[in-house]
Amino acid sequence: MAKSGSGAGPKTRSDGAAIEPERLRFPARLDAKAKIEHLAKKTIAMARREVDPYVDIPSRTLSNVTFSKRRKIIEMGDATQRRTLFNLNQARKYMQTLLVARGCSQLLDEQKTTSIRDLYYMSKHTLADGRENTFEGQEESDPIIEDLEVTLGALREELHLFAAKRGSAVGPLTLVDAGDVIDLSRMGSGGWSVPGIVEPGTIRFVGHGARFILLVEKEAVWARLNEDKFWRRHNCILVTGQGQPSRGVRRLLYRMVDELKLPLYVFVDNDPWGYYIHSVVKQGSIGLAFESKRMAVPRARFIGLSSFDPGNYDLSEDVSIRLNDQDRSRAREILNYEWFKAKPWQKEIRNMLRSGVKWELEALSSKGISFVTEEFLPRKIADRDWI
Amino acid sequence: MAKSGSGAGPKTRSDGAAIEPERLRFPARLDAKAKIEHLAKKTIAMARREVDPYVDIPSRTLSNVTFSKRRKIIEMGDATQRRTLFNLNQARKYMQTLLVARGCSQLLDEQKTTSIRDLYYMSKHTLADGRENTFEGQEESDPIIEDLEVTLGALREELHLFAAKRGSAVGPLTLVDAGDVIDLSRMGSGGWSVPGIVEPGTIRFVGHGARFILLVEKEAVWARLNEDKFWRRHNCILVTGQGQPSRGVRRLLYRMVDELKLPLYVFVDNDPWGYYIHSVVKQGSIGLAFESKRMAVPRARFIGLSSFDPGNYDLSEDVSIRLNDQDRSRAREILNYEWFKAKPWQKEIRNMLRSGVKWELEALSSKGISFVTEEFLPRKIADRDWI
Repeated sequence: MAKSGSGAGPKTRSDGAAIEPERLRFPARLDAKAKIEHLAKKTIAMARREVDPYVDIPSRTLSNVTFSKRRKIIEMGDATQRRTLFNLNQARKYMQTLLVARGCSQLLDEQKTTSIRDLYYMSKHTLADGRENTFEGQEESDPIIEDLEVTLGALREELHLFAAKRGSAVGPLTLVDAGDVIDLSRMGSGGWSVPGIVEPGTIRFVGHGARFILLVEKEAVWARLNEDKFWRRHNCILVTGQGQPSRGVRRLLYRMVDELKLPLYVFVDNDPWGYYIHSVVKQGSIGLAFESKRMAVPRARFIGLSSFDPGNYDLSEDVSIRLNDQDRSRAREILNYEWFKAKPWQKEIRNMLRSGVKWELEALSSKGISFVTEEFLPRKIADRDWI
Repeated sequence: MAKSGSGAGPKTRSDGAAIEPERLRFPARLDAKAKIEHLAKKTIAMARREVDPYVDIPSRTLSNVTFSKRRKIIEMGDATQRRTLFNLNQARKYMQTLLVARGCSQLLDEQKTTSIRDLYYMSKHTLADGRENTFEGQEESDPIIEDLEVTLGALREELHLFAAKRGSAVGPLTLVDAGDVIDLSRMGSGGWSVPGIVEPGTIRFVGHGARFILLVEKEAVWARLNEDKFWRRHNCILVTGQGQPSRGVRRLLYRMVDELKLPLYVFVDNDPWGYYIHSVVKQGSIGLAFESKRMAVPRARFIGLSSFDPGNYDLSEDVSIRLNDQDRSRAREILNYEWFKAKPWQKEIRNMLRSGVKWELEALSSKGISFVTEEFLPRKIADRDWI
C-alpha cells in the first residue's frame, strides 16, 4: 500500500489539522448480518484510505440514559465514544470488537445460535507473535458483546447469541418453535421452557384464546397456579421468570403484548426487588437501556403484592418479614427514580416503608394452599386493583 | 386422663427402670399418606399410654453413611436419634416435626403439591400463649422436612413437596404430564421443562424410540446439541440439569433408566465439580444418602470431558483454565472417596492434577460451533470412550 506523507497515522489536511472522520452509522433497515458486513467494509475502506480504523460506540453510561415521558421507557441518548485501532489504550478492545463481530458473522452464516460463553471460547486464542490471549476471560468478552449490540443497533439475540435460559409458560397459546407446533395448553405440570432466543426466526405465534398475560416472579407460585389450572378458568398465559426475568422471557412478553395485543400483569413479592422486577419489565433498565425499545412493556400493570394487600386480605403479621437496612435504602432510591414518581407508586412504596415489613408471594399460602388461585387473584382482577 | 404412679413422665417398671419404648417404624408397604396417619395414631396412643411422645429419626451424619459395594450407591445406616416432646432441648423440634407432617397430610388430602418455602409459610404462626413463632425461618423448616423424609421413608416429592425446578429435556419420548400427552421430539428450541415432581402420579412414560440418555451439565451445550438435532441422529433423550441436577431431574433420570431400560451418559466440565455432578447422579450424595435408592443410577457412565480428551481431540491450551487451590484440594478429596477408587477414576483425576488445568464443555466450541455434535460425541460413543 502506498504511504501518504504522514506515514501510517491519520491523514492530515494540507494545513496540518487531522481530518475528523465521519461517524460510523448502521442504518436500521439493515439486518444484523448486513450490519456486520457494513462494519467490515467500512473498516477495510478506512485502512485503504489510511484513516485509523475505528468504531463509534454509543455510551452506556448513566449520563446517556433518559426516561422518555412520551414512550414511557428508559432510552439511550446519542452520545458515542470512538474506539480506534491506533491507540495503545484502545487497540486491544478494538481487536476484541472485531473478533466478536467475526464470531457473530460466523454464527449468522451457519444459521446457528450459541451462548455468550461459547462465543468467548470461539474467539479466544493466543496471538501468534506473543503470549497474549485475545480474551483473558468471559468478563472481557461480555462487555464487548454489549458494545457491539449498541453499535450495530441489534439485540444479541439477533446476533445469534443467548444468555442462560430461565422461565416457563403455559396457557391458551399455540406457537411454532423451531418448526414444532407447540400448544401451551397441553404442557402438563412442567410447562414450556422459554428458550434463550425467541426472535421471529425461531418463535412464531399461531393462535391464542387468552385475555391477558400474568407474569409471576416465583416459580413455586406459578406451579401452584398451573396445578390449579388458573390459566384455564381465567383464560390467561401464565409465565414465570424465576426471579428477575431473563432476556428471553422479557422479549417473549414484549412480543406477546405487541403481536397478540394482550395486557400484561406482573405479580411479584412485596419488596423493593419485586418493584424493581416490575419496573424493568415495564420501562427497561438503566444498564441495558438500549434494549428497552424491543423489550420494555410500558403498559405492564403491577397487580401485587402491594403493601396494602396484607391489610385488605387479612394476612397475619406472622408471615411478614422485617425490612432490613438494604431494603430501606433501596426503597428510598427507587422513590427518586423518575418512573416511580407517579402518585400510586409513591403511596405504595411509602406505605411499605411505614409498615416496616415486606411480604413474599408464598406468604399467601398461610391463608390456604389455593388461596392465591381461588380468592386473591380473582378479587384483585375483579376489583381492577393494580398500578 | 388418669395419671400413673410416676406422674406424666415415662412409665416405669416395678423395679424402677424406665421402659424403653419400642422403635417407631413405618412399613415400606404403606404410602406417604398412610405413613403420616400411622405417625398420628402412634402419637395419640403414646399420649394415652402416658409414654413421652417421640419419633425415631434416622441419623443423617457421615458416620451413618456407607457405600454399598453390592448396590454401588451411598446408603444410610440404621442409626436413629430419638426426638421426644418432654425434653426442653427437643420440644420445639418435636412440635415442628408434627407441624410439617400436618402440612404434608393436608397437601395429600387436597391432592395438591407445593414448594418447601410455601410449606414454611403454611406452618408458620405465633403460638397462642406467647410471642414465639412455630418457625423463625425456612432454615428451620427445611431440615425438619428432611427429618420427616428419612423417618417415614418417603421422598419429599411423595409428601407433595418440591424444591426449585430446573432442567429441560428433548428426544424421542412421549409421556403424560398431569394428564397432557407430551411428545418430547416436538418441543422446539426450548424443550420440556422438567417439573419439580416427576413421581408416577404426575408423570407416566408412554413410549420411546431412544437408545440412550445423555445428561449435559451446561444448558448452552444442551441448546447446541438440540439445535443440531443430535438427539434425532443418535436416537437419544437429551437432558440438561443446568449445573448440579435438581432432585426432579435426578428422579426423572432414575425413572427413565429403571423403566425404559436405557443407558445413561453424563457429560460434564472437566473439573472436580463435573466429576462430583457425575458421582451424585451415579451413587447419590452423602448429605442426601437416604434418597440414593430412588435417585441414584449406579450404571451411569462418565462420557467426558475427560482430562485425556484435550490431548485426544487436539484442543488448544488457549482454552484451558488453570486449576486453583480449591480445585486441587477438592480433587484430592475426591480421590479418597471409596466410589472414586476404581482405577480409571484414579487415572482420570490424577491426570487432571498433573496437567494443572481444567476444561469447560464450551471449550469444544473453539474447534468449531458444531464440533461437539458432529465430531466429539459421535467419536466418543463409537469408541465407547467412557468410564
